Amino acid sequence: MSLLDRLSFNQMTADPWSLEEVVRNCAKSRIPYIAAWRHKLGGDAANASALIRGEGLRVSSLCRGGWFSAPTAEERRERIADNRRAIEEAALLDAPVLVIVSGPANGQTLDDARATVLDGLAEVLPDAEKAGVVLGIEPLHPMYAAERSVVVTLKQANDLAQQLSSPSAQVIIDAFHVWWDPDVMHEIERARGKIAGFHVSDWPVPLPGILMGRAMMGDGVIELRKLRQAVDAAGYDGPIEVEIFNDAVWQSRDDGLLALIQQRFIEYV
Amino acid sequence: MSLLDRLSFNQMTADPWSLEEVVRNCAKSRIPYIAAWRHKLGGDAANASALIRGEGLRVSSLCRGGWFSAPTAEERRERIADNRRAIEEAALLDAPVLVIVSGPANGQTLDDARATVLDGLAEVLPDAEKAGVVLGIEPLHPMYAAERSVVVTLKQANDLAQQLSSPSAQVIIDAFHVWWDPDVMHEIERARGKIAGFHVSDWPVPLPGILMGRAMMGDGVIELRKLRQAVDAAGYDGPIEVEIFNDAVWQSRDDGLLALIQQRFIEYV
Repeated sequence: MSLLDRLSFNQMTADPWSLEEVVRNCAKSRIPYIAAWRHKLGGDAANASALIRGEGLRVSSLCRGGWFSAPTAEERRERIADNRRAIEEAALLDAPVLVIVSGPANGQTLDDARATVLDGLAEVLPDAEKAGVVLGIEPLHPMYAAERSVVVTLKQANDLAQQLSSPSAQVIIDAFHVWWDPDVMHEIERARGKIAGFHVSDWPVPLPGILMGRAMMGDGVIELRKLRQAVDAAGYDGPIEVEIFNDAVWQSRDDGLLALIQQRFIEYV
Repeated sequence: MSLLDRLSFNQMTADPWSLEEVVRNCAKSRIPYIAAWRHKLGGDAANASALIRGEGLRVSSLCRGGWFSAPTAEERRERIADNRRAIEEAALLDAPVLVIVSGPANGQTLDDARATVLDGLAEVLPDAEKAGVVLGIEPLHPMYAAERSVVVTLKQANDLAQQLSSPSAQVIIDAFHVWWDPDVMHEIERARGKIAGFHVSDWPVPLPGILMGRAMMGDGVIELRKLRQAVDAAGYDGPIEVEIFNDAVWQSRDDGLLALIQQRFIEYV
């Protein structure tokens, strides 16, 4: 099996493309998976699923659930309800994984917000189990701790998965988010049997921005191959998602982008 | 003793001010310490020392040594020589601490670069011991891993201090760099007896930029009091440096800035 058989194109790598364009371009380039985002499915997961599967593609994951912390109890209940809808949508797409981005502290202390994340995951876990969907707990880079995710290390994600103790509670390892961590190799091994996804992009120097700073594989300093081999050695053989938030990449209007991704994927991942 | 008796004004919080202005304004505002930067001493540490001490101020630390990793052996030797000069300058200033910023990987792998940091510290440690200067190993936020510091967690800094096993090898805890870390409370306690400094600023939401994004205490989400109390509880009773890199703060031309810092220091630290 070639590594390219594991390539998944994340929709957000080409934000301006419609779902139809993503599906058509990936099919033409023989990219077997796409990673879907809820806000880019035209409000109809069943229809999106038919479109994707009609071209012979599979969905590696759906992004995203999570975002559990909220200032009021009512809003927190709404977040739980939204996570339940996300699980249903993942099931409709036949996506094995729902990506969980935990959300920021939102006025709580970090300790309280982190407890809220565990509570929220525990509350929706039975729904995920019933639907056959894995909650993929993704630690984000610590520079997103204030705005997006109080879960910032793979150790934390592993701890959460361990506490939840279910085949439907696993972790996602995104190279951009974890590469800096002195404990990352240890924690990848610790995640054995609980790895629900591996994401790649690169960290350019200098980093042009916090949200849109990611680079094409090979255009940065992340030791991608070392990380991929560690994830493989820990037993993961599933799809590898290419997820690049980058304004320049977003200017790409045709599938030249996909050929470049395939080339860099072979060379650097 | 009032908390204000521990306040140290970091020169870089008012980058446009000359050393003379910093010293005069701090003395007028009864701020007992300043934290000095090598490039802002007019090339003459003895003279700067006389100026600072002439106004009754003390230097809490000198920034910075470190930056050990380099592409060639010759450059690496030059870095070591520069660290020795920095130790001498700290001694001339009667600064008890030289702040160590480890530097980026600079083309090495992360593992190799981290080994280079330990080697470099071990090489200059006897000079620090002889001079009575503490090397304060400061972990930087992981968003600086690629450009400034391969030491990114307090755990790493504690591990380095432990390996070096000398009263002249300690750690510095900067709230901006460590607040996100789920292990920070544990590692602060672990640093007991080895804490060479505590720095404060704040993390605004949204963060306006990677380098110049720091905010005045109280204008962000860091649980500063909790961190300060933990550092105190771990036995640290030395100066607390206010270090804010922020373009708007740099526009302050008078000591209104110092009054604000004192007020926020009392209120939030």
